[in-house]
Amino acid sequence: MDTAKSPEDGWSDLPVYDASKRSMATIVGGRLRRISRTGLYVALASVMSIVGLYLLSQLDYHGPPTFARLDDKVAPHETPDCSPRYNISSMDIWNKATVRYNHLMDDKFTIAIQTYRRPDQLKATLDLLLAPEIPSLHEIVIIWNDLETPTPPDFTSDHNVTVRHRMSTANSLNQKLLPDAGFQTQAVLLSDDDVHYDAADLDFVFQQWRAHGRNRLTGAFARCVDQNPESGEWQYGWCKGHEAYSMVLTGLSFVHMAFLDYYSSEDPLMTRVREYVDEHFNCEDIAMNFVTSMLTCEGPLQVSGLHRPTNEAPPAGISTKPGHLEARHVCINSYVAMFGHMPLVETSEYISRGYVSG
Amino acid sequence: MDTAKSPEDGWSDLPVYDASKRSMATIVGGRLRRISRTGLYVALASVMSIVGLYLLSQLDYHGPPTFARLDDKVAPHETPDCSPRYNISSMDIWNKATVRYNHLMDDKFTIAIQTYRRPDQLKATLDLLLAPEIPSLHEIVIIWNDLETPTPPDFTSDHNVTVRHRMSTANSLNQKLLPDAGFQTQAVLLSDDDVHYDAADLDFVFQQWRAHGRNRLTGAFARCVDQNPESGEWQYGWCKGHEAYSMVLTGLSFVHMAFLDYYSSEDPLMTRVREYVDEHFNCEDIAMNFVTSMLTCEGPLQVSGLHRPTNEAPPAGISTKPGHLEARHVCINSYVAMFGHMPLVETSEYISRGYVSG
Repeated sequence: MDTAKSPEDGWSDLPVYDASKRSMATIVGGRLRRISRTGLYVALASVMSIVGLYLLSQLDYHGPPTFARLDDKVAPHETPDCSPRYNISSMDIWNKATVRYNHLMDDKFTIAIQTYRRPDQLKATLDLLLAPEIPSLHEIVIIWNDLETPTPPDFTSDHNVTVRHRMSTANSLNQKLLPDAGFQTQAVLLSDDDVHYDAADLDFVFQQWRAHGRNRLTGAFARCVDQNPESGEWQYGWCKGHEAYSMVLTGLSFVHMAFLDYYSSEDPLMTRVREYVDEHFNCEDIAMNFVTSMLTCEGPLQVSGLHRPTNEAPPAGISTKPGHLEARHVCINSYVAMFGHMPLVETSEYISRGYVSG
Repeated sequence: MDTAKSPEDGWSDLPVYDASKRSMATIVGGRLRRISRTGLYVALASVMSIVGLYLLSQLDYHGPPTFARLDDKVAPHETPDCSPRYNISSMDIWNKATVRYNHLMDDKFTIAIQTYRRPDQLKATLDLLLAPEIPSLHEIVIIWNDLETPTPPDFTSDHNVTVRHRMSTANSLNQKLLPDAGFQTQAVLLSDDDVHYDAADLDFVFQQWRAHGRNRLTGAFARCVDQNPESGEWQYGWCKGHEAYSMVLTGLSFVHMAFLDYYSSEDPLMTRVREYVDEHFNCEDIAMNFVTSMLTCEGPLQVSGLHRPTNEAPPAGISTKPGHLEARHVCINSYVAMFGHMPLVETSEYISRGYVSG
């Protein structure tokens, strides 16, 4: 059967389908052709989209051209074996802790001073810290561990630094390591009441923490461990004869809130560690070094100012009691047993303010 | 007109076009419907491709989950004004230089010792450098500036370090700053023949260069500049009374090949600087500090080992001649005029091996 053609119907010169003329095979073939043409369009569009997006992604526009940088690289041999942390740490708790405090100030820090019945020491330390203006110092929080004496009134210094007293819920060394919900900075300078950096050096140390120390304890006093090659026993020490160190005391050390969060978390190992600290009334500083190095596989960072930090360590302090050193040895070995390995990492350099003459 | 239907023709129940039945409007409408259906497919495919690629890009797969890191950040106030470099530096020459040496070894370094008629000094320095094994030391190249005396024979040390003598084409202080085509490492320790780090500290200093010093001069001796507030004149000095420094002498300093490349390039300012160094037979080290800080906007880095570097500076050396200090003042002011600004950047910290007791 012919189809009628009108002269003005230009479209009808194009091939069209007339079902009445076609066999089954013709119809199926025609439909397949039509489907495959649509398929071709789809494939073409997909390929063009992919190519276009790829080219766009390659542009990776970062603004006008600028001067290239040579990338700093850390030697591979400086990275210790990090595998144990996968077995003994709560990755979930830690990874949440690393972002939980992102809203806190990043360009200022808080000083958390733990004190127990040493008002003169505390006053001397506070006076020295509050005298000069330290622009990056936001707040000083006194962790008041004397549960029987009411806290003194809070106040604001001449340089607008608030001094807040926080009554502890127990006379526990773990109180200093709480991620205080009132802290408004990511950086906390943990401090005992009898030690302090020279106030003029504090901003320098804080800036070093920002640039190099966030994943570490960054502080003033370095300590070491030694292992007896025969017995395998660990010993705590002052690093004499060492060329490196593996701990920085939390008596004067910057720490990121995330580490306080993890230390105070429900992680079973952390719960045991806090119980140990309370049972022995000691070694919360060693514990904090174990925790940070376990989580980050990095050693601590010692930072020195223009002036040496003051250590007024009085005769009545914990660290000068008879048997102190032996108790510290025991802590190290207990923690190694609890952690299932020795997580401390050695650091072979320190940062100092100023320059060396020569 | 009816189309014939055979019972076995299931396809014919679907609507098909019969041109013989249709007016112009019907035909155009049908074709538009068909075109718009194809368009719909194309649009759908595009959208699906884009969504799919977006989702893929969001996955950003970096391997199994791992422990998060807290990012180190440098305080904004530490970044000086970098705008002058856009006017006085050849971005193209520099950016090419930063990638030109990517094929060279990154985990070893070369020592380039410039010497001129001081065989005893040179021998003493070489003996000290070659005695212990320094795994990261690849080669020592002696820049032989005494054009009238043939170079001694090259040799290989007991620890497999080659010592190569390179006859200079002129007795010029610029010879030490050439990006020697024979160097096989990205890092070059520029050295005079009378100074050296303790050999046992060299690997430590090199590792600090790798981790923190690639964009800087990283060395042993810090120097300062002072500006007279009234005259605006600059003075060169030993940093007495300073809390920061802005130069590290190339008498003992690690430098990336890219800086040697730029210094020795056809850039007009570099050509003038090299001419100045040759005219005055002095101040190539100050020039190198100007160039690195101009290009990177960073200050130098002083690194100290466990032992202080040896400086055997003899009475006949350039730096102890009468009028040396005055000549250095003149160089600083000449360079400030040539560069159009003072590019030096202050560094307020140094890195030292070991720990501070306390």
